[in-house]
Amino acid sequence: MSLNTFGHLFRVTTWGESHGPALGATVDGCPPGVPLTEADIQPWLDKRRPGQNKNTTQRQEPDQVEILSGVFEGQTTGTPIQLMIRNTDQRSKDYGDIAATFRPGHADITYHQKYGLRDYRGGGRSSARETAARVAAAGVARQALSKLAPLVEIKGYMVQMGEKTIDRSRFDWNAIDQNDFWCPDAGAVQEWEDYLQWLRKDDHNSVGAMIEVVARGVPAGLGAPIYGKLDTDIAAAMMSINAVKGVEIGEGMAAARLTGRENADEIYMGNDGQPVYSSNHAGGILGGISSGQDIVCRFAVKPTSSILSPRKSIRIDGSPTEVVTKGRHDPCVGIRAVPVGEAMMACVILDHLLLDRGQTGGIRGQIG
Amino acid sequence: MSLNTFGHLFRVTTWGESHGPALGATVDGCPPGVPLTEADIQPWLDKRRPGQNKNTTQRQEPDQVEILSGVFEGQTTGTPIQLMIRNTDQRSKDYGDIAATFRPGHADITYHQKYGLRDYRGGGRSSARETAARVAAAGVARQALSKLAPLVEIKGYMVQMGEKTIDRSRFDWNAIDQNDFWCPDAGAVQEWEDYLQWLRKDDHNSVGAMIEVVARGVPAGLGAPIYGKLDTDIAAAMMSINAVKGVEIGEGMAAARLTGRENADEIYMGNDGQPVYSSNHAGGILGGISSGQDIVCRFAVKPTSSILSPRKSIRIDGSPTEVVTKGRHDPCVGIRAVPVGEAMMACVILDHLLLDRGQTGGIRGQIG
Amino acid sequence: MSLNTFGHLFRVTTWGESHGPALGATVDGCPPGVPLTEADIQPWLDKRRPGQNKNTTQRQEPDQVEILSGVFEGQTTGTPIQLMIRNTDQRSKDYGDIAATFRPGHADITYHQKYGLRDYRGGGRSSARETAARVAAAGVARQALSKLAPLVEIKGYMVQMGEKTIDRSRFDWNAIDQNDFWCPDAGAVQEWEDYLQWLRKDDHNSVGAMIEVVARGVPAGLGAPIYGKLDTDIAAAMMSINAVKGVEIGEGMAAARLTGRENADEIYMGNDGQPVYSSNHAGGILGGISSGQDIVCRFAVKPTSSILSPRKSIRIDGSPTEVVTKGRHDPCVGIRAVPVGEAMMACVILDHLLLDRGQTGGIRGQIG
Amino acid sequence: MSLNTFGHLFRVTTWGESHGPALGATVDGCPPGVPLTEADIQPWLDKRRPGQNKNTTQRQEPDQVEILSGVFEGQTTGTPIQLMIRNTDQRSKDYGDIAATFRPGHADITYHQKYGLRDYRGGGRSSARETAARVAAAGVARQALSKLAPLVEIKGYMVQMGEKTIDRSRFDWNAIDQNDFWCPDAGAVQEWEDYLQWLRKDDHNSVGAMIEVVARGVPAGLGAPIYGKLDTDIAAAMMSINAVKGVEIGEGMAAARLTGRENADEIYMGNDGQPVYSSNHAGGILGGISSGQDIVCRFAVKPTSSILSPRKSIRIDGSPTEVVTKGRHDPCVGIRAVPVGEAMMACVILDHLLLDRGQTGGIRGQIG
Repeated sequence: MSLNTFGHLFRVTTWGESHGPALGATVDGCPPGVPLTEADIQPWLDKRRPGQNKNTTQRQEPDQVEILSGVFEGQTTGTPIQLMIRNTDQRSKDYGDIAATFRPGHADITYHQKYGLRDYRGGGRSSARETAARVAAAGVARQALSKLAPLVEIKGYMVQMGEKTIDRSRFDWNAIDQNDFWCPDAGAVQEWEDYLQWLRKDDHNSVGAMIEVVARGVPAGLGAPIYGKLDTDIAAAMMSINAVKGVEIGEGMAAARLTGRENADEIYMGNDGQPVYSSNHAGGILGGISSGQDIVCRFAVKPTSSILSPRKSIRIDGSPTEVVTKGRHDPCVGIRAVPVGEAMMACVILDHLLLDRGQTGGIRGQIG
Repeated sequence: MSLNTFGHLFRVTTWGESHGPALGATVDGCPPGVPLTEADIQPWLDKRRPGQNKNTTQRQEPDQVEILSGVFEGQTTGTPIQLMIRNTDQRSKDYGDIAATFRPGHADITYHQKYGLRDYRGGGRSSARETAARVAAAGVARQALSKLAPLVEIKGYMVQMGEKTIDRSRFDWNAIDQNDFWCPDAGAVQEWEDYLQWLRKDDHNSVGAMIEVVARGVPAGLGAPIYGKLDTDIAAAMMSINAVKGVEIGEGMAAARLTGRENADEIYMGNDGQPVYSSNHAGGILGGISSGQDIVCRFAVKPTSSILSPRKSIRIDGSPTEVVTKGRHDPCVGIRAVPVGEAMMACVILDHLLLDRGQTGGIRGQIG
Repeated sequence: MSLNTFGHLFRVTTWGESHGPALGATVDGCPPGVPLTEADIQPWLDKRRPGQNKNTTQRQEPDQVEILSGVFEGQTTGTPIQLMIRNTDQRSKDYGDIAATFRPGHADITYHQKYGLRDYRGGGRSSARETAARVAAAGVARQALSKLAPLVEIKGYMVQMGEKTIDRSRFDWNAIDQNDFWCPDAGAVQEWEDYLQWLRKDDHNSVGAMIEVVARGVPAGLGAPIYGKLDTDIAAAMMSINAVKGVEIGEGMAAARLTGRENADEIYMGNDGQPVYSSNHAGGILGGISSGQDIVCRFAVKPTSSILSPRKSIRIDGSPTEVVTKGRHDPCVGIRAVPVGEAMMACVILDHLLLDRGQTGGIRGQIG
Repeated sequence: MSLNTFGHLFRVTTWGESHGPALGATVDGCPPGVPLTEADIQPWLDKRRPGQNKNTTQRQEPDQVEILSGVFEGQTTGTPIQLMIRNTDQRSKDYGDIAATFRPGHADITYHQKYGLRDYRGGGRSSARETAARVAAAGVARQALSKLAPLVEIKGYMVQMGEKTIDRSRFDWNAIDQNDFWCPDAGAVQEWEDYLQWLRKDDHNSVGAMIEVVARGVPAGLGAPIYGKLDTDIAAAMMSINAVKGVEIGEGMAAARLTGRENADEIYMGNDGQPVYSSNHAGGILGGISSGQDIVCRFAVKPTSSILSPRKSIRIDGSPTEVVTKGRHDPCVGIRAVPVGEAMMACVILDHLLLDRGQTGGIRGQIG
């Protein structure tokens, strides 16, 4: 248990603020002997990094990760891995004017109420910059997964941006990495881009998004009753990401609409002697434990509240004011939430893999 | 951290299977001096209890709670409170035929795969009977909340059952306890009842549901960055309930559809010197910390897979079979999930109240 | 983390008071498929049980354990195991006169100060009766160890009672179970017994003791830096036992007196290709990790403060009084601490076995 | 729960190796609004720092702490505090010859067995350099204690070095900071110094030590049954320090020798309306909860195994060898363990202060 820590055995504690000298992640419990260098982690950070195209914030951060401990001669030693990212582009002047003002939709007011003070520079600890630390930690998790469960593949993508949704019939796994939106429907990309540019430049607005994250190749048997369920931990992991307001597994909220006949995933024996299912309404998890099907999770990211349109608020002294957020902000923070969702999934899967082999030794009940 | 435990300071560990001798909850960390008798807990169990009307399973369980420890002369002592509920209506013969069969949509197959064996009687540990233990534990949490934060009021209700949704314009807080569905729209009840009876008797089917749980009167300042967020813990708590497939805070998944201008809750100073908000898209939580607004959470419950319609599956030996679940099952388990959702909310709120006063001493930053 | 829980993966939460209806242990995280019946646990409880000979309290408790969950058809299922022991011999009248008095050397005064109230009957939660729950939980741990690490053997014995110490040259492993003191020096037993009877009957006094617990056959590699060290967890486990005031590993406090040349355990290769050591000053643990040598731990138990000789104290109202404890008390509680020390060792070893295979998968670095 | 983390609410995770780029501590759960700068922490690090006099290792490390997060405008914000110390004096050549050799009495062999690889430079993670991170974290704890419980005073000192013990009749609280041994008996210092110099230079040996740590002014009511006892956590904290082999509270191991009449601390009402005790055999803790008396803890530090005298050992390939440790080592590591013991005590006391106010709100049962 801790406020800034997640995970049971693969435990990640993140630290740092948007405009402090650095931020990072302390990763404890990683298996030993996992090949790991900064070059293994950096690509994931680059994927999340702002300022890469016109659809994300123009803030420029190299987000260069340094491994300060836990790795020796290119391998993890089983001791804590400290990952540090220096903050290099801290234009504190951008934020000075909000020192005494609570931005609507932000954590400014609740941090003030709870702690009596806050680091107001760029949102401080509540900034989405914190997610860089998660992505770095997940770089470690991915290396460990590569070794322990090489069939696991984790992929995130946007399925909705505002009113615009993908056409599932055009879903293309390979398209995801080919556009700035991590959108699996190549045909939707131009329209999304036009909309987002209009929204930002002309409408001075922002927009929400829905991200789907899939984990393929996860062995059956991960997760546990009743509070250590795999879906419980995925839900917590995704909900902990900034601006996330909802999380779904499999059918998700739409399950409320279904009947039992529609929803049941029927079971067959596959040709390889493993059970197969007629469908995947369950999202790969039954009773909190993975079934071997794809694990399917979706989460909704609210539109950022940092927009150029004025919104009413108050100052610390209680006086009314209007807030217009100039800074450099993402018109759709959901785009950059894609690699973050993948990161959380990677950490949860690895954690449950370790937890399962701790308790069961990785034995599996036979079928057939 | 534990598999069957939730909570940071107010910690609940549940134990027990559907058809074992008993089930219960070990509650640790409760404040001392809280008035508590079995009569304080029993009404919440009665609310969740099956067999009370024709819309829920006809299984009859008195679900009588016994306090075995932690209470002295009618007050909590600060030591662990053991709550035990005897299982009295265990018709194991109902389940004998599924000992070697995996029911589709149930945890039978994943428990078998993970553990190599399972208590197949009534779903064993994965049975919704486990939720009785949560409700009992929440009876303790509610007593503590009454003492520490008497303004807190927690209410759950159904807002959707299958295709049928409530009419929000007819929302009546007082109607909730007046019908078998915990439905706040009295005008919808008859139709829901007719539908459910048809579904069960004629269609041999079941249906999903959506539950909303609101916590009013929660003080600002509960919750914490970044993984100990209040919404993170609520999401985990709700997702841990059997059959839940999605969890939302405030706008939830619909936030993906909104723009920043629409979504921002503007802030004013209220007449009592406390901040007030123009709306509550955030669901009462900003940056993981309560704002003082109503905390609003929704979760979707899938339709039970235990239906009279045959579904294809396999046996442990891999041979194909068809499963028809006769037993006594809820056509809409969502109904009985309402008090369970309330229970989880009560536990989370109390836990964060204790956690906050542990770290901050309950100080609050002033506004105005 | 929890107040009444110990263990990382094999987690034990005990509950219950001396004079409540029952006490017990909630055991979570046990591996599945471990053979377990009440008959496997009962012998360990019988060993700890009072009233068996004239050297321990004459309180009569059958201490019959009931398994309420987590076991199906004689095997653990991997879900929580609830172990309950009914309190049957609750002579509350023995304790009524101390409701308003703080017994010196007991927790009466600190419980009152901390919680504002206390269950004064028999010490309530602070009674040594709680240790029955640990012993029951360790019965589960021992069954799991039998399956996972069958070479592990755990043995506790008394090496000192007051001024009287064993003669190490007469140490006989087989003598331990042959006398009422779990004393490995058969030649000391008669003198110990005479002394204890005189102490109780004539001197109206009690006496402290030192217990040594050895774990043989523990594989190298259990434990972890820096706060999850095997010796850290053993020290915590032993110190958590009632009346324990000191814990040692290997040379223990005497290490302060030694020089580096004396203290170093030199290393050789054994005939079986495993490292062997010239001595075991380290007590089987190097850098927090087991070396494969015997794990050797000692702890000191203070003399019970419940004696027939009057001691000065105060009442809740602050008035002075004298306390003479009549009840039925052990003149040397250290005797019954022997099986409790063994129990804690068994739980810690199993827990670290699971933790190690969770993180490392049980791989071992080769030597030679 | 974690391998490299301690604390319930005030949680410290340390990271880093002896010869990596840096080491540090991630401190989570610190109360907000605590004044904190690097200058508040540095003096404690300077106290622990090697190379300050001829009685400790001549390794020169400035041990300059940097605060990377969690502090804003000189106050803690309630978010994680990252404390980093750069390793500047890494003479890896000192250690190259032991890459393939297991030093007797060190963790070399067990790390190798457990993890399959190890950072052999200076002991890697098992180096006493790790304790610098604890001392830095405790600097934060002390600042928080100054604010929350200003009467608390924590003091450590050496009471024994090898065969040489202090004369308690000459105990002088003020002498402690006046000599290189943190020795409260000024009359013993010259003899200790002569002995240590002879031991190092002429005898090529090292020696153990016993340290006592006292916490004064701790309010009654900290700690909790049964596994979250204050003495349990102190024992774990001290045993987690490198080279510690035993921990005592109050009478400690000597309690085995006492009778109940001797050991009972009788209770009176003091002039200020608070209970006072005739003695402090209990070491300030009853039933795991502080009584308001001085908390008294002792721990034994073994002699370092790094000595110039040859000791027999083996290489990774199993071949026999002799180890002579040249490097720069403390002849009595116990000296530098003094500030480390103080540090652990400070962290535990603060943690329990937060835990207590979380559960009880800091209420106290009245006496008189």
